[in-house]
Amino acid sequence: MIRVAVDAMGGDYAPAQMVAGAVEAVNANKEIQVLLVGQEHIVSEELKKHTYQKEQIQVVNASEVIETEEPPVNAIRKKKDSSIVVGMNLVKQKEADAFVSAGSSGAILVGGQVIVGRIKGVERPPLAPLIPTEKGVSLLIDCGANVDARPSHLVQFARMGSLYMEHVVGIKNPRVAIVNIGAEEEKGNALVKETFPLLKECKDIHFTGSIEAREIPHGGADVIVCEAFVGNVILKLYEGVGATLIGKVKSGMMGSFRSKIGALLVKPALKETLKSFDASQYGGAPLLGLNGLVVKTHGNSKAIEVKNSILQCVTFKEQGINDKIRESLRKNEGTPFGHTTMPNKNGQE
Amino acid sequence: MIRVAVDAMGGDYAPAQMVAGAVEAVNANKEIQVLLVGQEHIVSEELKKHTYQKEQIQVVNASEVIETEEPPVNAIRKKKDSSIVVGMNLVKQKEADAFVSAGSSGAILVGGQVIVGRIKGVERPPLAPLIPTEKGVSLLIDCGANVDARPSHLVQFARMGSLYMEHVVGIKNPRVAIVNIGAEEEKGNALVKETFPLLKECKDIHFTGSIEAREIPHGGADVIVCEAFVGNVILKLYEGVGATLIGKVKSGMMGSFRSKIGALLVKPALKETLKSFDASQYGGAPLLGLNGLVVKTHGNSKAIEVKNSILQCVTFKEQGINDKIRESLRKNEGTPFGHTTMPNKNGQE
Repeated sequence: MIRVAVDAMGGDYAPAQMVAGAVEAVNANKEIQVLLVGQEHIVSEELKKHTYQKEQIQVVNASEVIETEEPPVNAIRKKKDSSIVVGMNLVKQKEADAFVSAGSSGAILVGGQVIVGRIKGVERPPLAPLIPTEKGVSLLIDCGANVDARPSHLVQFARMGSLYMEHVVGIKNPRVAIVNIGAEEEKGNALVKETFPLLKECKDIHFTGSIEAREIPHGGADVIVCEAFVGNVILKLYEGVGATLIGKVKSGMMGSFRSKIGALLVKPALKETLKSFDASQYGGAPLLGLNGLVVKTHGNSKAIEVKNSILQCVTFKEQGINDKIRESLRKNEGTPFGHTTMPNKNGQE
Repeated sequence: MIRVAVDAMGGDYAPAQMVAGAVEAVNANKEIQVLLVGQEHIVSEELKKHTYQKEQIQVVNASEVIETEEPPVNAIRKKKDSSIVVGMNLVKQKEADAFVSAGSSGAILVGGQVIVGRIKGVERPPLAPLIPTEKGVSLLIDCGANVDARPSHLVQFARMGSLYMEHVVGIKNPRVAIVNIGAEEEKGNALVKETFPLLKECKDIHFTGSIEAREIPHGGADVIVCEAFVGNVILKLYEGVGATLIGKVKSGMMGSFRSKIGALLVKPALKETLKSFDASQYGGAPLLGLNGLVVKTHGNSKAIEVKNSILQCVTFKEQGINDKIRESLRKNEGTPFGHTTMPNKNGQE
């Protein structure tokens, strides 16, 4: 049995879509138990609309809600009875294996570090969404958790990302590349120039060198390593260019009578194709390197994404990703980019 | 009369498309004289295929060619008779007002600084392409010239970019924004956090705050300020996502008999729409802040882009952009981000 806490109050379509997603997940897999965290009367009312095995969903009351505009550190500190804090505490106390939320990114990142806590030796937990490519999906790591990261952080991102792609997504010997502004080793900013030789030394990953942003949508690498500011720009521009182009295609087809007829004919095929390029199909972004699993799903997640995010937690748990991360850190202990012997802030393992 | 030196040897389709573009430009505007720089016999042979006013095009011999793979600093130093070095020297010696090349980006950036030289007070010359948006175009500055830039550099980019958008592109009071990972002032990496308050103080630009990458294709700002690594990622991802999506749309429409018929009907309208989202329509990227003008056009430029890049030089000259940059630097002398009194490396004005 795998237990996943789900933030019923976070996201643009909460609680309805969060609850619906939880129901879809338990109906798809009898091994899952969902702890729906939120204001009990609202969540229970919403649950009444659905059919599911009662023992698979439990409501955990949390009276407060963290809004997306709230400064994250303050919100986590003050709103002790918010759905995010309560849900993360369930993970910390091993009452849940994972926590899924579509709420405030900032609060999730802060809460992940200070409540759930890092695996001993992990310097920074990166946020790592899957992004669609021509060939399937790639893992973008880090995409918003740690701006101004150091080379050793990026090396850990590469290792954790490689384990995730291999064991959760199922890509054998995933190609790991670092985002750069040219293909040659001597190109790049100071961070990339320092990180590149460290990645080359890593015998436990399949490092293929630099990747230019142009090659990302073509599927040029499976694990795309970058500093969080750059990763965030990549993720958001993906969305922006996609939305703009699809809008242009649609309005272009409405331009003449002739093309309107054509549009009716191509619509079903086009819809199917574009769906494969829609990030929402691939579940949420894990915050890797924590004692447990925290998954951030897009703020505008609907039931399908919530369901996929919950199912993702099952694979993560079954594959023992955190044990594999611990093992990797142990193996690289003593190297400049491996296991550090300093306990982290929370003194947690 | 405006004189533009054009690198006949640089780019994927040189010399044919470079020569064709030069011919189209002089045929479109009688006030332009083009100095075609390259291996004389090859260029002259190519020119014979075209009809134009002989006095409007002159061939300037340059026996060497810098290849894109060559390390730029070395190439500029050693290949004194290359089309890039000869063309830039024409600008330096005021025999040409501008130099247009589709050749090695690295060599053009290095040559711009060491041969043409910076305007006194300009700390770093940024490369600033126009990128298509839903609403028209935006200027992305800097997009590859200066990685790991400092806040004062970004402030100068904002000012130079604003002048360019207003006077060359014709956008009144252009909206200037800094690329960030959130809309709030406290968000960002160290560079953005330091730069933000400096931009707020600039009375001579219309600073609108942060812009998230998602908003760039929607036309959220006219001048998009960022450090070169980030700018390069934005520019290349624009290309990559665009190419991938258009490919998906096309193959999606070929998926069934029904949609194939539809595709035939929508094709002309779609082609027209996508053209408006094609960066090549907007000429090349100026390297701003030099004593003269250097324009880098895309390596795969064809005649239309070469022509547009040449015509762009005319507006740049007519509007006296460099005088406006000098005036802006003078006005802001003594401020932490304005005119510095230190001579630059070349001791040039």
